[in-house]
Amino acid sequence: MAFRLRRILFGKPLRTEHAAHERLSIPLALPIFASDALSSVAYATEAILIQLADARVPHELFGVSRWISLGIVALILMVVISYWQIIHAYPGGGGAYIVARENLGEIAGLIAAASLLVDYVLTVAVSIAEGVAAALSALRQFPQLETLEEHKVWLCIAMLLIITFLNLRGVRESGLWFAAPSYLFIFSMLGLIAWGVGRSALGMKPVQAVAPPNPGIGLTGGLTLFLILRAFSSGCSALTGIEAVSNGVQAFRKPEARNAAVTLVILGALLAVMFTGITYLSNHYGIVPAEHLPDYGGENTHETVVSQIARGTFGLSLPYYVIQAATALILLLAANTSFAGFPRLASILAEDGFLPRQLANLGDRLAFNNGILVLALLAGLFLVSFGGETHALLPLYTVGVFIAFTLSQGGMVSRWWRQRQFGWRLIINLIGCTITGIVLVVVASSKFWVTTPAATLFRIGTLPVQEGAWIALLLMSLLFLMFRGIHRHYQIFDQQMAVIPAGYDRPFKHTVIVLVPSRIHRGIVLALNYARSLSPDALAVHISFDPSREQRLRDAWAAHGGDTPLLILDSPYRTLIGPLLRYLDAAENVRSDDIITVIIPEFVPARWWQHFLHNASGWLIRLILFYRRDIVLASVRYYLDE
Amino acid sequence: MAFRLRRILFGKPLRTEHAAHERLSIPLALPIFASDALSSVAYATEAILIQLADARVPHELFGVSRWISLGIVALILMVVISYWQIIHAYPGGGGAYIVARENLGEIAGLIAAASLLVDYVLTVAVSIAEGVAAALSALRQFPQLETLEEHKVWLCIAMLLIITFLNLRGVRESGLWFAAPSYLFIFSMLGLIAWGVGRSALGMKPVQAVAPPNPGIGLTGGLTLFLILRAFSSGCSALTGIEAVSNGVQAFRKPEARNAAVTLVILGALLAVMFTGITYLSNHYGIVPAEHLPDYGGENTHETVVSQIARGTFGLSLPYYVIQAATALILLLAANTSFAGFPRLASILAEDGFLPRQLANLGDRLAFNNGILVLALLAGLFLVSFGGETHALLPLYTVGVFIAFTLSQGGMVSRWWRQRQFGWRLIINLIGCTITGIVLVVVASSKFWVTTPAATLFRIGTLPVQEGAWIALLLMSLLFLMFRGIHRHYQIFDQQMAVIPAGYDRPFKHTVIVLVPSRIHRGIVLALNYARSLSPDALAVHISFDPSREQRLRDAWAAHGGDTPLLILDSPYRTLIGPLLRYLDAAENVRSDDIITVIIPEFVPARWWQHFLHNASGWLIRLILFYRRDIVLASVRYYLDE
Repeated sequence: MAFRLRRILFGKPLRTEHAAHERLSIPLALPIFASDALSSVAYATEAILIQLADARVPHELFGVSRWISLGIVALILMVVISYWQIIHAYPGGGGAYIVARENLGEIAGLIAAASLLVDYVLTVAVSIAEGVAAALSALRQFPQLETLEEHKVWLCIAMLLIITFLNLRGVRESGLWFAAPSYLFIFSMLGLIAWGVGRSALGMKPVQAVAPPNPGIGLTGGLTLFLILRAFSSGCSALTGIEAVSNGVQAFRKPEARNAAVTLVILGALLAVMFTGITYLSNHYGIVPAEHLPDYGGENTHETVVSQIARGTFGLSLPYYVIQAATALILLLAANTSFAGFPRLASILAEDGFLPRQLANLGDRLAFNNGILVLALLAGLFLVSFGGETHALLPLYTVGVFIAFTLSQGGMVSRWWRQRQFGWRLIINLIGCTITGIVLVVVASSKFWVTTPAATLFRIGTLPVQEGAWIALLLMSLLFLMFRGIHRHYQIFDQQMAVIPAGYDRPFKHTVIVLVPSRIHRGIVLALNYARSLSPDALAVHISFDPSREQRLRDAWAAHGGDTPLLILDSPYRTLIGPLLRYLDAAENVRSDDIITVIIPEFVPARWWQHFLHNASGWLIRLILFYRRDIVLASVRYYLDE
Repeated sequence: MAFRLRRILFGKPLRTEHAAHERLSIPLALPIFASDALSSVAYATEAILIQLADARVPHELFGVSRWISLGIVALILMVVISYWQIIHAYPGGGGAYIVARENLGEIAGLIAAASLLVDYVLTVAVSIAEGVAAALSALRQFPQLETLEEHKVWLCIAMLLIITFLNLRGVRESGLWFAAPSYLFIFSMLGLIAWGVGRSALGMKPVQAVAPPNPGIGLTGGLTLFLILRAFSSGCSALTGIEAVSNGVQAFRKPEARNAAVTLVILGALLAVMFTGITYLSNHYGIVPAEHLPDYGGENTHETVVSQIARGTFGLSLPYYVIQAATALILLLAANTSFAGFPRLASILAEDGFLPRQLANLGDRLAFNNGILVLALLAGLFLVSFGGETHALLPLYTVGVFIAFTLSQGGMVSRWWRQRQFGWRLIINLIGCTITGIVLVVVASSKFWVTTPAATLFRIGTLPVQEGAWIALLLMSLLFLMFRGIHRHYQIFDQQMAVIPAGYDRPFKHTVIVLVPSRIHRGIVLALNYARSLSPDALAVHISFDPSREQRLRDAWAAHGGDTPLLILDSPYRTLIGPLLRYLDAAENVRSDDIITVIIPEFVPARWWQHFLHNASGWLIRLILFYRRDIVLASVRYYLDE
């Protein structure tokens, strides 16, 4: 029954040999591996604007975001080139963990791994939260759906469950299912930018007014370098997901490295165009993330910046709804990316002995089920704790991405250096490492602990998050310590379990004990015969609760016990375990042999309800004696027919 | 830890020999065995009045309840005499089950047992419900406690849990704890009656007006024979609990029979005095159970009749509160009676093979823990289903009591007849049997399915109970069928398990198989040595998920496997169980020996968290193979030190 249900839900089990067939072509890989990076277009521009708005910068000055976005595009270009080199250097599927570990040592590798794992979890949480926000932005145009907003967290959890389920069915099917919406997003977003930029070039006004009605009231903030850096840091969330390709080279069709690199370049180009386009249009329309500045006079709406832009470009027409739907869908695809990446990285870490080995097990459908479930659980915790708010989660997110960037570039620098390749390869990675390292410091320091007006909006319970990059850093540190602890256990385990050729390899002597109840039945006779076949000196032990019944047992023993001696132990408190353990301790002290075999005779009823009509003492004894050393437990069962 | 907590909660375990010391003297036995019968004073009079009030009888005619109560006292007298004889005939502790079974056969015995078990459950439910009602009657004088009424069911459940807990600690302690309140009830109730009757003899008016203010408006009912019989049937709830003494003769100190009989007579006398006294006073004060007749103009109060009488006699003074407290407490004691009786009867039935054997096990504290828990669970179900309303439960209750009365009297008649004792003993039991039989028919028929005005007040969910004696009869029938089914199972079980001297008693041949994982470690070597000590032909079996790793295993086997052959089974779907079961089936077909011993090598980590770092396949295999016939499972464990 359970097996059949499982088949219906998850599909037929797949054979191990089919694993290779699950590889992806570029058109199928792009939606899976690029969706994370591309989907950040949905929130990166908004993240910049929120920083400016929070600092109460008059929004004539919001044009600075255009220049910030150009800086970020330069960063994207550099990161793409760096990863192009990594993919070719590590066609076996590199990613920050492997690159850093091989070239910078285990500690760097584990730091990279910790930051990647945290990032995968946050990708899921952020993408689902933003996907639901995009959907709600469109749905708020229908007044009867307004109350949906209140159930945002549960909408997020529902999405999470759906994605988890699809991934438990296996990665290939999710690739096919998810390809169409991803391309829809790419084309509709490019269409939006083309249409919007075209209208702007022709000097046309927005179709709907989307800028705040009373600009500039009470705005006293100025542009400081720190503020620009903070806004830049926030915009760097656009870079999240670029590393996904390099982690998953092995998921591509052959030639893996080339296909992966091509995919990476396509995605870098798309990302640069979309991000600058959306930022340009947000400036052009004078958009402000109104929800964070209630004194702007706007309703306290939760409309996303992309929704505002789409409304300004197309009005509430079909293209607007298509764009919102595509945005929501690609964000869910982005979450799906992590469901490919997290379990794969976890299984590599498990194979290396840094995570529990169960994470390396392939499930029925060739998916790493345990990793998928762990990821879903952690992402669900984040979604619930942060109330499904994207911008509360973003600061945690960006810092980990840049740790991974910096470490993998650094690894590549070290690699070229050791290979004596001092040419342009080294220079590219050295520049990449330096710049991502600087950005990492900027992101971590500007996001670590600063209280902003917006911060009070995002709370864990009653505790303001305060742009808590520290939460991500704390989690990574804990993960790092866990890796080390687990690795230490496996090392000690291996030492303890290593086979020493001499010493163990000698014939065994063992004492055989049969536990008998107060009544001699066929199951007991079966167990006695079995015991005698193991050792001619087998001994029967009975634990007696009631001395008045002992004689009856002795009589039965005389009739059916054969020549096996019967030892009766009194248990005045009517418990089996105490006297049994005491007897075993005593027996061990007088014996000179290796081990005691305890035979537990049991009978198995024919029907389930009959279990309730018999004592479960067999189960109890097996459970307790399982933790008694130097005993072999043998369960001899007699089966009832009706 | 769990063990220590258990000690603190339930006390130290007691030795089996102490069982005899738990016997009760008359002063200690009276509160335990008589409380059930005496406590019915709290609701029997009210039950009669409710019948009259429901039939809209003008309450000048309520005086008839006096005559009904005299009839019931005659019945009490007769039942006491009959039970006197039963106690002396069955000093071993008789009760309806044993008497009926010995003299009328198994079917009669089981019917009696079923009705007794249902009655014990209902005693608990009714007594707790009425005890809580008595307490609430007093507490409603404090307006700030008025809302307690709404939580009546949960108050009942809380009381049930307390009583259950005390009984799990053992019967002697509850005897000591509970003696004082029982005597308080007896003396305060006798005091109430003496004071009230004295005042009435002196022609004094009630201290407080307790009769309804507008008597007789719209009351058109007349006294019919059927109505009087129904009222009589309801009043017969006064007789519940009289049989308790005869069921528990073995709980008395020696001489058991004499002590029990004396206790019985004392309780009969007390019961007769109290019941007639309360009924007399209810007439004298003109009390009507006002809650059931809203058009009487009274508030819809839930005050009990005894509370009204006590208020009329003493006003809201200290004696009133003492009486209410004592009434509530003796009702809880009455519930406690069943906690002595039910587990004892269940254990007798279990010994006879009609109930699961676990019910015959004595717990740590010499109490039948399993029986206590079953009783608490069932009583809790009744309390919740009937919303803790006494008078909804009463009709179910009385019918079972009279089945037990009739069957045990009938059993005695049969016994005297077969013993050729045709004298007064036979006549007494014959009269007893006839009259209780007639009352049984009256109770069952008048309560079976009649819709009364009150019935609509008492509902199970939205289904009116309709004086559902049928519920009790249905339950008894189900119990009866269960007894037979269980007995049949145990009989077949005994036949199947009976030792046949020839055939089984020959030396065993067995095949030994060691399951090995993909890695050879010390635990495997241990298991292999053990296997070789059992049979020189032991075979190792490995189930392979990944053909690419097989060579590594073969190399390790060459080094450490000794001369034991290794068989590798492919499992393309990466499951252990399927290939293993298929192999065992195949192996069984080609072998000629008796049994396969499957050795499962396992290791036990030193710390709990380390369990999470290793596969639990050993547990899984043992669980699945437990249901595979003709296999002995032997678990060889290697213990890790750190």
